[in-house]
Amino acid sequence: MKYGFGIDLGGTTVKIAYFDETGEMLQKWEIPTVTTDGGKHILPHIAASIRDFIRAYQINETMILGMGIGVPGPVDGKGVVNKCVNLGWGVFNIAEELSALTGFPVKAGNDANVAALGEYWKGGGRGYDNMVFATLGTGVGGGIVIDGKLLHGAHGSGAEIGHMVLNRNETAVCGCGKRGCVEQYCSATGIVRLAGLKGMKDVTCKDIFDAAKAGDKVALEVMDEYYEYLGEFLGSLCSVINPEAVVLGGGVSKAGEMLLTGVEPYFHKYVFHAASNVKFALASLGNDAGAYGAFKLALDEFGA
Amino acid sequence: MKYGFGIDLGGTTVKIAYFDETGEMLQKWEIPTVTTDGGKHILPHIAASIRDFIRAYQINETMILGMGIGVPGPVDGKGVVNKCVNLGWGVFNIAEELSALTGFPVKAGNDANVAALGEYWKGGGRGYDNMVFATLGTGVGGGIVIDGKLLHGAHGSGAEIGHMVLNRNETAVCGCGKRGCVEQYCSATGIVRLAGLKGMKDVTCKDIFDAAKAGDKVALEVMDEYYEYLGEFLGSLCSVINPEAVVLGGGVSKAGEMLLTGVEPYFHKYVFHAASNVKFALASLGNDAGAYGAFKLALDEFGA
Repeated sequence: MKYGFGIDLGGTTVKIAYFDETGEMLQKWEIPTVTTDGGKHILPHIAASIRDFIRAYQINETMILGMGIGVPGPVDGKGVVNKCVNLGWGVFNIAEELSALTGFPVKAGNDANVAALGEYWKGGGRGYDNMVFATLGTGVGGGIVIDGKLLHGAHGSGAEIGHMVLNRNETAVCGCGKRGCVEQYCSATGIVRLAGLKGMKDVTCKDIFDAAKAGDKVALEVMDEYYEYLGEFLGSLCSVINPEAVVLGGGVSKAGEMLLTGVEPYFHKYVFHAASNVKFALASLGNDAGAYGAFKLALDEFGA
Repeated sequence: MKYGFGIDLGGTTVKIAYFDETGEMLQKWEIPTVTTDGGKHILPHIAASIRDFIRAYQINETMILGMGIGVPGPVDGKGVVNKCVNLGWGVFNIAEELSALTGFPVKAGNDANVAALGEYWKGGGRGYDNMVFATLGTGVGGGIVIDGKLLHGAHGSGAEIGHMVLNRNETAVCGCGKRGCVEQYCSATGIVRLAGLKGMKDVTCKDIFDAAKAGDKVALEVMDEYYEYLGEFLGSLCSVINPEAVVLGGGVSKAGEMLLTGVEPYFHKYVFHAASNVKFALASLGNDAGAYGAFKLALDEFGA
């Protein structure tokens, strides 16, 4: 049996987990992301934490197949990071650098893509070799699995599904600088915005879900409008990808089954008929999806 | 040196070509598509034509690595056709059937996807391992190449890019039964429709291009509106796929360089910034793209 690490590098914390090659998570811990000095301490700090772990548990290093890391920015197939603004990083090969620091082979990917791989491998997308994962949180991110492999994109920017165009006439500006992105409608922030337009002020996403579940008429209208945007977005996306399953994660997915039953009719309104045979599921790994996916990256690359 | 066949099966004609394994097209010919009796004569007719060719040229059958075929409908990874309405076909394994009829291994794919593979291999997309091909003809079809391989989709319906949603408020019905599809705006038919809305009646797509090239104000407005739809569509699509290149084919691509320079500014308006580094090119294989791509399917599967 071989073992390895999955690392989910976020803007405030780094989640590190130790796995066996079957995908059993044996240990996990978190360290802060040290963003001072242009982020130059981040990788040495991660490497030191992993070396400490190996020493403390007296792990035989020949049993370590390698490690994977998910990064909050574009990463190409060779491991070259193309700017992570949150971390202060420019352009460099994170796989080579972390490998030099740890002595183990490293495979890197974009964090949202890597989380998709985790949900595919061990979460809500298990068994679906062609899968779309959408995280509906503060923003909208995601990842796409095709024949069991991640779509990384030519420059590591594949599956930026939150920035498909949903309404070219939108006047408000998206975080990305464009107008009318999916993210402006289909995120948790988007629900709150839709609610505000209907007179529900100072509410959270959860307030809206709770009101809708309690039968509040305005909240139900807000959700219905939301489901239509989400259905249109996923319908367009699935006409391109033709996946077996769509897995929904992020804060909005806490709405639960209501979300799935709400979006499906609109999905069928907007998807191309030959791509309509799609199973909807909720993400099930929560904050661990990134670590699972990161280890799976390494396993696919360096495993037996 | 090994050899093989590429077959492009259309609703009225079947294009068959004979290649060497470097991709040199040594011979090509056409036979009619015999759609009588629910299309049951189509494959025997193709097989007979190929047997005739082999006999006439006294080709050593051990030199044949196999054949590929592009089909006007969904085809899954195992070669199962899921209804080709034009041909009268239901659900069956075309790869197995054509292989039994010819004695050679067969790999099948959707015709638009296969044409994309052809343009990637030997046409306008050459050298770009991540590529989107869009055919802007009577309808809008296309194919997506990821890391040098076709995106087939879970049910053989991948890359139905003409049926992404472009305008959910559209009232006219698309050929697919939905409303507001890319195809309704970005096809040759779509240009003529846009022109009609601006008072240009009884014109062809070519008339509009010619008028625009001659500086006609209304035609230029029509083209500008068209470029914006096309840019929005390709911007959304490339935010998902992050390709290195977009290759445009079909009747609209006869507009030439004007089309590329027209669409690019709108593409940059709508694409996610990290996916904006895209080279635009015109398709270069014309009607031969399908045969090239079909042979490439076989070469990838059965070649050395």
